Amino acid sequence: MDIFEKLKHMGPIGEHSERAHGYFAFPKLEGEIGPRMKFRGKEKIVWSLNNYLGLANHPEVRATDAKAAADFGLAAPMGARMMSGNTNYHEQLEKELSDYMGKEDTTLLNYGYQGIMSAIDAICNRRDVIVYDAECHASIVDGLRLHQGHRYVFKHNDIEDCEKQLKRAVEMCKTTGGGILVITEGVFGMAGDQGKLKEIVALKSTYEFRLMVDDAHGFGTMGKTGAGTGEEQNVQDQIDLLFNTFAKSGASIGAFMSGDKAIINYIRYNSRSQIFAKSIPLPLVIGHLKRVQMMRQQPELKDKLWSNVNKLQQGLRERGFNIGKTNSPVTPIYLQGDIPEATAMCLDLRENYNIFCSIVVYPVIPKGQIIYRLIPTAAHSDEDIELTLKAFTETKAKLDQKVYAVAEIPMV
Amino acid sequence: MDIFEKLKHMGPIGEHSERAHGYFAFPKLEGEIGPRMKFRGKEKIVWSLNNYLGLANHPEVRATDAKAAADFGLAAPMGARMMSGNTNYHEQLEKELSDYMGKEDTTLLNYGYQGIMSAIDAICNRRDVIVYDAECHASIVDGLRLHQGHRYVFKHNDIEDCEKQLKRAVEMCKTTGGGILVITEGVFGMAGDQGKLKEIVALKSTYEFRLMVDDAHGFGTMGKTGAGTGEEQNVQDQIDLLFNTFAKSGASIGAFMSGDKAIINYIRYNSRSQIFAKSIPLPLVIGHLKRVQMMRQQPELKDKLWSNVNKLQQGLRERGFNIGKTNSPVTPIYLQGDIPEATAMCLDLRENYNIFCSIVVYPVIPKGQIIYRLIPTAAHSDEDIELTLKAFTETKAKLDQKVYAVAEIPMV
Repeated sequence: MDIFEKLKHMGPIGEHSERAHGYFAFPKLEGEIGPRMKFRGKEKIVWSLNNYLGLANHPEVRATDAKAAADFGLAAPMGARMMSGNTNYHEQLEKELSDYMGKEDTTLLNYGYQGIMSAIDAICNRRDVIVYDAECHASIVDGLRLHQGHRYVFKHNDIEDCEKQLKRAVEMCKTTGGGILVITEGVFGMAGDQGKLKEIVALKSTYEFRLMVDDAHGFGTMGKTGAGTGEEQNVQDQIDLLFNTFAKSGASIGAFMSGDKAIINYIRYNSRSQIFAKSIPLPLVIGHLKRVQMMRQQPELKDKLWSNVNKLQQGLRERGFNIGKTNSPVTPIYLQGDIPEATAMCLDLRENYNIFCSIVVYPVIPKGQIIYRLIPTAAHSDEDIELTLKAFTETKAKLDQKVYAVAEIPMV
Repeated sequence: MDIFEKLKHMGPIGEHSERAHGYFAFPKLEGEIGPRMKFRGKEKIVWSLNNYLGLANHPEVRATDAKAAADFGLAAPMGARMMSGNTNYHEQLEKELSDYMGKEDTTLLNYGYQGIMSAIDAICNRRDVIVYDAECHASIVDGLRLHQGHRYVFKHNDIEDCEKQLKRAVEMCKTTGGGILVITEGVFGMAGDQGKLKEIVALKSTYEFRLMVDDAHGFGTMGKTGAGTGEEQNVQDQIDLLFNTFAKSGASIGAFMSGDKAIINYIRYNSRSQIFAKSIPLPLVIGHLKRVQMMRQQPELKDKLWSNVNKLQQGLRERGFNIGKTNSPVTPIYLQGDIPEATAMCLDLRENYNIFCSIVVYPVIPKGQIIYRLIPTAAHSDEDIELTLKAFTETKAKLDQKVYAVAEIPMV
């Protein structure tokens, strides 16, 4: 049989691609990154970008990015970090990040996805047991898939179940002779709820394990200094491996892992995606240095973010919207409706209210549910928020009145 | 047991880190990317960078990189390609690459390592069987490790064994109902020998399978137009999935996969590392467009590369060096010696002859062997080559005379 034959079924998102391509999937937002961008030639208020602190287009960031690329080009350094891709800037960034995160050491990762995946792979052998939250990101799941030992999943943020799985893991390790790694996230990117780091850390007094936290959405947004959800929950020192990415608050690409010197150095020397793939380009590293400096020295960026988060989330709650259990900037709006209604409402929002945001439907979530996922940033204005609250109020009324159920959906 | 306990053994390379860090591992090459760079303040002739065409530091490339970063910053676009990270430039690059590769369609990959890994994962289900060359790159191996079905390895470039494994795969597929994917490389990065694409393609008349080729080292260097090893061997149209990276000739980061429209679109919509991780930044995409244009419009770059390859390889052969079976720019030098001798010789080359190149020893290769791996580029000069030939001739004589066996090795 031809291995390509089955791929004619294009998969859960791809099967809608003929209709959706360029509109719901692979849309093009044009112009400078920010809360107002052009989509198909018309200005929209954009809620889809994880540009939390508004750094992407900040004049200081733009100046640094431009100068670094002019000084070094985008090719340097060449080769994997271990072979020929190391620079003083990489090492300086690692030092500054360690200081910011309150950790002994940090290793840069050339990309977040392969970075965390290979770190998990490097640390765990087949004797070890991984205990992880059910809603961990795809990159963690791929790390788990590489793991040849046992893995036990606990129900999302369910500490009772977490402890139950820890007990199973302890039992299993008596047989295998391995150790236990617990993995969760600082802020879950879909629902915006924080991982229960404090409660998991408390389990350390009873069970022997190490804790890895993916704080992609918490880095720069959570905690007094923006050091993340560990700082927010006052358990930063109990996170053994702290993973963060530059793809969100950092407004770039690349990632890093922080922790004790010995374990970070182990990852530095043994992580397959790092020793067999190219180092982060120098202009990006210099750009990271600038972004991290700004995160630390300009707390007003985080203050402005949270001011906008509170306005948006309070405004939605006051208007009767269900935004679930978020306690981070991530703002989901939960609605009821089938895919055609969801599509029609999203189109209405985009075309008639000029609101661009991401929508999640079946098969990612159960049938009959619709989630809009809004990411407020420091760059949004009061007017952006007010227009958006108004738009959602009006479109939700139409959804409730079943207007979209009978709407003629135009081809996009 | 503490899961970190076992990691005190730092691994095959890490165990030498106290001695080797900053010298043999994680060295810093400073100054502009090119055949002469500074290492610890002193100019060296560098043979470690896959900057085949000399594009990294080409004035046209540097100007494009600087302008693109000034125009767009390094943050844009934000988000995964499918969600909010698509642009006209990404699509234009895909079109130009398809045209260059002679394929219907191309999908950009945000990083080569996770790109090919997830593509393999997306295509194959547990019924499918993967048949692959024993020396495939780590990123392919990680793709295989994610595969839940059967996989059969064939001895490196051994077509008889390849056919044997294909027969096993065909038998297995009768039970599983799956299909067969064969994976090999265009140019193997260590030994420099080309994959036997032509011979593998010939097996298609007997066995039903699809062929994926990782041509990371062949892109830009092999074939009449630089379209790669498939072009070189006149079987480009029989490669079903052609993977290339920008990390080598392309002097950047990121990668792409080319093939028939349907299969590429399937990968576009179903590849986990692409749909759950950020798009390639716009300045890199614009930089790629420039680099691809230059590859196609300035064949003199490839001519100069090959002139240097021939001078270096012929010079080495004439002086009695064993450079194995390379038929690509990758130039390995095979020597006999133990690790202390290898270390002493490498130090001598670096400190007294000012030659910087990468060395491979046990446990990557068997004990008693030493491989120096030289990457000639279009930017190297005749003088670079002559000095290097002289240096290797003299140091090999010392190695043969057991000078290094008794040498006092200075701490680096």
